[in-house]
Amino acid sequence: MATQQLATWSVNLQYANLTAPVIAAAVTSLYNWAGCAIGGYQQPAPSLALNATFPHFGGAPTSSILALANDSTQTDAQIAAFVNGIAGHVDDYDDTHLATIIHPTGTVASALFAVAEWQGGVTGQEFVTAFVAGVEAELKLGLAVWPEHYDVGWHDTSTTGSIGAAVAVSKILGLDVPTTQQAIGIACTQVIGMQEFFGSDTKSFHIGRAAQGGMIGALLAQSGFTSSLQGLEAQFGWVHVVSTRENVTAEFDQLGEVWEILSNTFKPYPCGIVMHPSIQGAIEVQSAALGQGLRIQDITSVEARVNPETLVLTGQTDPETGLEGKFSLLFGQATPSQFTDSVVTNATVVALRKLVNVTTDSTINEDEAYVSALFQDGTNVTQHIEHVIGSIDNPLNETQLKAKFMDQASLVLGEERAGKAYDAFMGIGNVSDVGLVILTGRGFEGASAF
Amino acid sequence: MATQQLATWSVNLQYANLTAPVIAAAVTSLYNWAGCAIGGYQQPAPSLALNATFPHFGGAPTSSILALANDSTQTDAQIAAFVNGIAGHVDDYDDTHLATIIHPTGTVASALFAVAEWQGGVTGQEFVTAFVAGVEAELKLGLAVWPEHYDVGWHDTSTTGSIGAAVAVSKILGLDVPTTQQAIGIACTQVIGMQEFFGSDTKSFHIGRAAQGGMIGALLAQSGFTSSLQGLEAQFGWVHVVSTRENVTAEFDQLGEVWEILSNTFKPYPCGIVMHPSIQGAIEVQSAALGQGLRIQDITSVEARVNPETLVLTGQTDPETGLEGKFSLLFGQATPSQFTDSVVTNATVVALRKLVNVTTDSTINEDEAYVSALFQDGTNVTQHIEHVIGSIDNPLNETQLKAKFMDQASLVLGEERAGKAYDAFMGIGNVSDVGLVILTGRGFEGASAF
Repeated sequence: MATQQLATWSVNLQYANLTAPVIAAAVTSLYNWAGCAIGGYQQPAPSLALNATFPHFGGAPTSSILALANDSTQTDAQIAAFVNGIAGHVDDYDDTHLATIIHPTGTVASALFAVAEWQGGVTGQEFVTAFVAGVEAELKLGLAVWPEHYDVGWHDTSTTGSIGAAVAVSKILGLDVPTTQQAIGIACTQVIGMQEFFGSDTKSFHIGRAAQGGMIGALLAQSGFTSSLQGLEAQFGWVHVVSTRENVTAEFDQLGEVWEILSNTFKPYPCGIVMHPSIQGAIEVQSAALGQGLRIQDITSVEARVNPETLVLTGQTDPETGLEGKFSLLFGQATPSQFTDSVVTNATVVALRKLVNVTTDSTINEDEAYVSALFQDGTNVTQHIEHVIGSIDNPLNETQLKAKFMDQASLVLGEERAGKAYDAFMGIGNVSDVGLVILTGRGFEGASAF
Repeated sequence: MATQQLATWSVNLQYANLTAPVIAAAVTSLYNWAGCAIGGYQQPAPSLALNATFPHFGGAPTSSILALANDSTQTDAQIAAFVNGIAGHVDDYDDTHLATIIHPTGTVASALFAVAEWQGGVTGQEFVTAFVAGVEAELKLGLAVWPEHYDVGWHDTSTTGSIGAAVAVSKILGLDVPTTQQAIGIACTQVIGMQEFFGSDTKSFHIGRAAQGGMIGALLAQSGFTSSLQGLEAQFGWVHVVSTRENVTAEFDQLGEVWEILSNTFKPYPCGIVMHPSIQGAIEVQSAALGQGLRIQDITSVEARVNPETLVLTGQTDPETGLEGKFSLLFGQATPSQFTDSVVTNATVVALRKLVNVTTDSTINEDEAYVSALFQDGTNVTQHIEHVIGSIDNPLNETQLKAKFMDQASLVLGEERAGKAYDAFMGIGNVSDVGLVILTGRGFEGASAF
């Protein structure tokens, strides 16, 4: 009954059912992701994906690439979802649901923005409600199969994300309960994303492809295409095929009671979240050392004590590209500008990296780290990060989130248009047509959603 | 090294390396599938899929839907591969590699025909060579993870098929070894198809979507998109994530030594192959009974003794639609005309079905069955099918294969054009441009590939 349970909950969900904190979390999730999807377009992957598909497979232009403020670069909803999905994740700077390490917004939002702009007339309240439905679906599923599903190697952001996207798009399209079940089924049978592809363009491909998969599920179901009414819970359906653990009904019983989106967090650094305590520790050690008149070039060794999970994903000691560097860099400032190929291969960075020793300690929490630097004169500078910034106990505030958006969007759109885009995405809950938010976000002077 | 091993073998494979039986098996596989893709278009799924995508997402028209002999219905290569992939499998009438129950041609051929027609200038020899490379790739992979991968619920035709399509399209595009490895990686991370969706439109969706997934993998890799050079064998890559069994290197060691395509078989009946011995038995019982002057309406019970695998997929005793009926129907003639909703719900069929008792017997082979009918006058008519027609020991001959093609294609194209299409696909190995085979296959008078 899990598939029916999810579809029934989603179809019946109303904006009025959303609490104020849920709405606030949804809006923050959306604009944080939009900033990433604009800023991330500077990486190679999104435009490679656009250029490999759009000239050959682009249909009627209905939907925007968020970073491209040029009407002639609109494309069809499938390609827009694909490219925005890639762009929003490529910097590893999007949101994180800590209990599942799922980055929930990308798959759902990239499908939903593309469809809303295509269909037209989708209000901000309808959009936010569908978005929350999709996010809750993927996160409850993620919890239901955690950690067995992740431990075997699946990238749960995208494996659950196609289903979240199908739920959200089905809701925007007004599908009824059984048709939504069919859409969920079509999404279930497309399992996108394995961890082997972390550190390559294909990690972010997972998000874009899962968004497309969910969208095509909803569109096929709408057309009468059949799949299964039990795509999730059947013996040979999603839950049992992709995991050895089955807890989906218990999780779905909490739909609308425990809102997972309230546990969504936003990253201060553009890399895998398990690295963040070490990065903040390193930045604070550097700052403290400089404050004491010490010189970074006099460091003789660096010790980091971290939670054991940190090294599972980040144990690459010899990265060659910026993407691999995300999961290995240990020192200095940490904005997208530091996550480049040239920084990673810089001789000073490489030399410093060789001085770093990381030990794991299971008494250290995942949002915690100790970082120490030993200097030639024998001085030891140590910092303890108790709850890293961006964690659930120490979230980014609105000022920091706006700065994060502006840092990313300004590089692509310029400062003035980035400010307008911020206002547009911040106000998404109140608009009469979400398509106009997107146009405003892309910087069209004439467009106003308000 | 498995991914590199596969890519190296595929890139180096030449038409001259193919033995005459391999070439013959490839051509038979291709025209058998083309007949299915033309005839299968009469089912709802292919046109539902076309109509849900083409009007919105159709790019420049370069590639044909094989069943539609109208130039205005050409679409882009992604959608053509999708729709032909669905059409070729929807009747469950395509080919079968018995050791893996993989239907190998659909994913590879639908991607390859679409790309070859789009790119232009692909010779028949190049096409057949790329096709064999893709088919060997998917079948060796299928063997490497059999039966654990299938037993957990994956539809191995499509889970291996995206990788086969990526290999074949990479070869047609002339990608080098490392780029082919990247393409294989992108295909690996899209795992399409679970057995829960058997009996619905989504079963054939698996084929079309896997074809698209492999094609996009090759196109992205060609554009410089990165994935992994070890997508198959890495700890968190395809083999280990989707199976608890790892035998891929041993299988790949046999590439070009043991040709799996020589074990490909062609179905006499449009349904899951495990049902075929029972169906042939039922047909032969009916024929024998009528020969003795008995009447079918006087049957009081029917006993079928079959291999235990038969009931794993076909234990549905109360089917509601033609698609579900495929896996349950037991009596009468067995061409696509008998696999319709109206036949399945016909009162006589339903009444007869209730008289059927199936027992399993592990001493009976998968290509074997005993079927008996007891009549009101006490007569018992029994037939023993030792090797069902279409099995490796009793294959369809060329006359039967042509009749199968003509039965399907004539319903869509008419007899005369179906004959021309048969000649065109039969001659595919000798043409200078495969695109012209497709046009001839679709019935254009002016087109000739010869």
